[in-house]
Amino acid sequence: MSSLEVVVKEIADEMRQRPDRGEVATYIPELARADVKAFGLVVIDADGNVVAGGDSELPFSIQSISKVFTLTLALGKAGDRLWRRVGREPSGSAFNSIVQLEFEKGVPRNPFINAGAIAVTDLILSGHHPREALGEILRFMRFLADDSSITIDEAVAASEQRTGFRNAALANYMKSYGVLENPVDLTLGVYFHQCAIAMSCRQLAMAGRFLAHHGRNPSTGLSVVPPERARRINAVMLTCGHYDGSGEFAYRVGLPGKSGVGGGILAIAPGKASIAVWSPGLDASGNSRLGRIALEALTKWLGWSIFGE
Amino acid sequence: MSSLEVVVKEIADEMRQRPDRGEVATYIPELARADVKAFGLVVIDADGNVVAGGDSELPFSIQSISKVFTLTLALGKAGDRLWRRVGREPSGSAFNSIVQLEFEKGVPRNPFINAGAIAVTDLILSGHHPREALGEILRFMRFLADDSSITIDEAVAASEQRTGFRNAALANYMKSYGVLENPVDLTLGVYFHQCAIAMSCRQLAMAGRFLAHHGRNPSTGLSVVPPERARRINAVMLTCGHYDGSGEFAYRVGLPGKSGVGGGILAIAPGKASIAVWSPGLDASGNSRLGRIALEALTKWLGWSIFGE
Amino acid sequence: MSSLEVVVKEIADEMRQRPDRGEVATYIPELARADVKAFGLVVIDADGNVVAGGDSELPFSIQSISKVFTLTLALGKAGDRLWRRVGREPSGSAFNSIVQLEFEKGVPRNPFINAGAIAVTDLILSGHHPREALGEILRFMRFLADDSSITIDEAVAASEQRTGFRNAALANYMKSYGVLENPVDLTLGVYFHQCAIAMSCRQLAMAGRFLAHHGRNPSTGLSVVPPERARRINAVMLTCGHYDGSGEFAYRVGLPGKSGVGGGILAIAPGKASIAVWSPGLDASGNSRLGRIALEALTKWLGWSIFGE
Amino acid sequence: MSSLEVVVKEIADEMRQRPDRGEVATYIPELARADVKAFGLVVIDADGNVVAGGDSELPFSIQSISKVFTLTLALGKAGDRLWRRVGREPSGSAFNSIVQLEFEKGVPRNPFINAGAIAVTDLILSGHHPREALGEILRFMRFLADDSSITIDEAVAASEQRTGFRNAALANYMKSYGVLENPVDLTLGVYFHQCAIAMSCRQLAMAGRFLAHHGRNPSTGLSVVPPERARRINAVMLTCGHYDGSGEFAYRVGLPGKSGVGGGILAIAPGKASIAVWSPGLDASGNSRLGRIALEALTKWLGWSIFGE
Repeated sequence: MSSLEVVVKEIADEMRQRPDRGEVATYIPELARADVKAFGLVVIDADGNVVAGGDSELPFSIQSISKVFTLTLALGKAGDRLWRRVGREPSGSAFNSIVQLEFEKGVPRNPFINAGAIAVTDLILSGHHPREALGEILRFMRFLADDSSITIDEAVAASEQRTGFRNAALANYMKSYGVLENPVDLTLGVYFHQCAIAMSCRQLAMAGRFLAHHGRNPSTGLSVVPPERARRINAVMLTCGHYDGSGEFAYRVGLPGKSGVGGGILAIAPGKASIAVWSPGLDASGNSRLGRIALEALTKWLGWSIFGE
Repeated sequence: MSSLEVVVKEIADEMRQRPDRGEVATYIPELARADVKAFGLVVIDADGNVVAGGDSELPFSIQSISKVFTLTLALGKAGDRLWRRVGREPSGSAFNSIVQLEFEKGVPRNPFINAGAIAVTDLILSGHHPREALGEILRFMRFLADDSSITIDEAVAASEQRTGFRNAALANYMKSYGVLENPVDLTLGVYFHQCAIAMSCRQLAMAGRFLAHHGRNPSTGLSVVPPERARRINAVMLTCGHYDGSGEFAYRVGLPGKSGVGGGILAIAPGKASIAVWSPGLDASGNSRLGRIALEALTKWLGWSIFGE
Repeated sequence: MSSLEVVVKEIADEMRQRPDRGEVATYIPELARADVKAFGLVVIDADGNVVAGGDSELPFSIQSISKVFTLTLALGKAGDRLWRRVGREPSGSAFNSIVQLEFEKGVPRNPFINAGAIAVTDLILSGHHPREALGEILRFMRFLADDSSITIDEAVAASEQRTGFRNAALANYMKSYGVLENPVDLTLGVYFHQCAIAMSCRQLAMAGRFLAHHGRNPSTGLSVVPPERARRINAVMLTCGHYDGSGEFAYRVGLPGKSGVGGGILAIAPGKASIAVWSPGLDASGNSRLGRIALEALTKWLGWSIFGE
Repeated sequence: MSSLEVVVKEIADEMRQRPDRGEVATYIPELARADVKAFGLVVIDADGNVVAGGDSELPFSIQSISKVFTLTLALGKAGDRLWRRVGREPSGSAFNSIVQLEFEKGVPRNPFINAGAIAVTDLILSGHHPREALGEILRFMRFLADDSSITIDEAVAASEQRTGFRNAALANYMKSYGVLENPVDLTLGVYFHQCAIAMSCRQLAMAGRFLAHHGRNPSTGLSVVPPERARRINAVMLTCGHYDGSGEFAYRVGLPGKSGVGGGILAIAPGKASIAVWSPGLDASGNSRLGRIALEALTKWLGWSIFGE
């Protein structure tokens, strides 16, 4: 066993036994059905080795992790024009806060809080039918993960569509300032579906590889984004990827990462690895509790923190 | 000339000629006397090579850069107890905002906004006479920079003491919540003096070396802080070091950094270099305009971004 | 001519000539068609004398003035239970602010800001089809004004329905906290239509009589609400009736009053008169500029301020 | 016994027995010594009859009620120029909130929140020695109450000076925006002393008479302020006199009133009476709990609400 395999196995074993697992998200009813005991971890290193531990093949709802990929897609379409509609500063607020929108005239602070991600999705939607936009997002995920079996969990999408009033408030608010171009219902429809994409840790870690390797898929060598863009997406992940827990994640884990309320986290060790972890119990900021703890242990053991070995 | 020497020289030459230099800070009257044309840059690499460009030996007021060093000192005294008095999340607000304090019952968001830095200084002051506390801070700076000529600019300290009403508001506000232990006037006195420490780019880059090298002074091999603490201070610098411009700095420069309204920035390339840059003209967030541009160019040329080469 | 007739005539004449008329509301496109030169004023005194000046018979969109009447209706249905869903404190914010909702968990500050009025309408709607609820509101207005010709301007309602994103944000936000019972679209549909009721100053002053006379219609002697409730509605009008211009209206006019962005104001001189004024040009707080000036002149001349003759 | 005497006696008797008396303020240590069982009530009608109940002659700390009188004094000095430094809108916030100051660049919302009252005191102080300014305020109180025995409780003033960090924060914050002219310490010194004036209900009701009677002292006929100014001060008392409980006070009591954390309330029935009530237990907004209940009963029985009999 390689040392990476040892570390991943050790962590997966330890996490399986921890009693303090946080609370499964209940604000989307369908997510509340997740098994709080689940834990998965996959690390894909620079040589393409896939090291998996725990429930690494079980699909879960990626939720806000999708924001990393829609940001990548939208930057490909709009380039830096995107930053006219959304900022790139940490918000200092919860993921669904609307206060900041009022103080800053409808322009969301960054693409990883809900408002910002909805604005990014709106940009992808422009000029397309919602089904096309969603198809494009899904194809992009399949291409990145090199796995055509990735699908959308319609039950989760429908559940959020029935109960996503807070997101509807954010979208309508931005619409009132002209930040959204498309009808609110259509943009939200695409957004709820992108969040409902179901992926396993293996698939997610596969999809994140380009961010760890200068924008390229390391197996095929194909460029997904220019190296500078990969760096910049990582920077936004580090400062904004965990809502009002972003500082804590940087402090403890020391890697760019993006969490979702389904309990997944995608973390990037630049030049070294793409990492996906999943445990459905959340902490007070809405980030996976064990996921963060596992990543903290991993970077410590491997000396992967971007802030120094 | 080494390639690092070429890059530093090139950047210093280019910066000297740029017309768009931002505005010198005027809110502390004494700072308004700085020469907007000044520009200095010093990089000290892992082998201890000091590469200097421009006005690298001119002392300037380090202002908020002092917060990195008082945080280091205070962590040495109080350890993780420090984090009971101050958070480590980006604030999403300006350096002198008081709104966040009201919403969070007097506990500042992080040690690099003014309120947080005042709380850290209060902790250093506890149990000491202000003169002793200030002496300790100054001795620490001299030790880190290996330079006993570093002093405090009394005119700047006096200027801020006469006009620092906003900081007095922050300090009194925290005092009302019991976050400060010492009399407000004493804590502010030490704080204004620490901000008035004058250092050149060379001295500042020297002082920052331990953060680039696992907490050790690379010439002497002496440990200043444990490696994990160095990483964590770097993490806080990255997420919080440039106030509400921290996201932008991470996005463009990709290094942990701390700015001061005197126009200086200390930046850390973990494992690679300690970097100090100085240009007194500021952007809208109160960070050195050319300093940031110079660092962006430097990390791009050298592939030093922590988010990927 | 009675002295009241002299005062009303004088004011109407003066207002017709004033050049500084404010800006007609544009945020609902249909309202932008109002004639900025229009001015109407009607005072109905305790003896039932109707004294009219200017464009007293032209119907205009009553907009937020409808909130006084839906509050009255809803208090009749729910009594003090209503105050569990909406507060009765001035908000200190603009009519369409959403910040306060976030800080107070979806409970609007008072029934006269948009969020509060939507919550009140939702209460009237509960258990009914939107058409029934709207019919009930319209019948109530006709009954109070003793005028069956009052109708809803469908063009205005449709215009707001197409562009009312800010109100949709408020409604969805409250819905996310369970403050609204009905589907957001249905509640908003009723709300937009109640705001689109068109009335003349004469009709509006007629409808307001019960508030000036202990809850009774002074011509018929029929009780609309108990005397204490009339007093309390007047109190809420005084403290909250002009959004973040409520203090100014109390200071200058000294009467309970409710404004609408259509340019109308209903003002109550308790025990003395019901007053309606209309001029479509608005001030910065969204209240009729000439309407307020006319009322200030009126109360001064007649010694009608509730704060002393 | 007149009916007023009956009502006052009845209320005083009932209040003496109520068990739910609220909490005595503890944030100024010296105030915590007040007897929670105390209750006093004095009504002075238009004919100068003084009707007293309970502990009507015991002096208490008037605290924020002093703001009514310093506003009156300052308007006499500066006229409407005063309103450049302080607004007259309800704040929607607690008495000591600093958030509003940040959003509105140091200009307090109204003269009855702490920040606004400090700005008003600063205006009275300008051009004077603090002792002179304080003497002027004290002489004004004695003149209005026709009672030269009124004094300042130095123990309360000293207690607040030692602990008034929140007020020091507000003052320094305004100073940073240039809203205060004098040294912060001097303005605060006068402010803490004006709040420490000790008066009985009888003295306070005497001092308030001019507000009930068109600006005149009804016994001497001497004018204190023009009638319009008396009306306007009453209007500001109604909309802003009870902090974020102002709407509630208007809704329940229906009179202009100003409370203090010492448990006193001055209420004005325009044209009818000046009323002072005192009970040291406070509600959540910092207003006298039994004081408000007593005034609600009083206005109901006597039909004195300004919003209708």
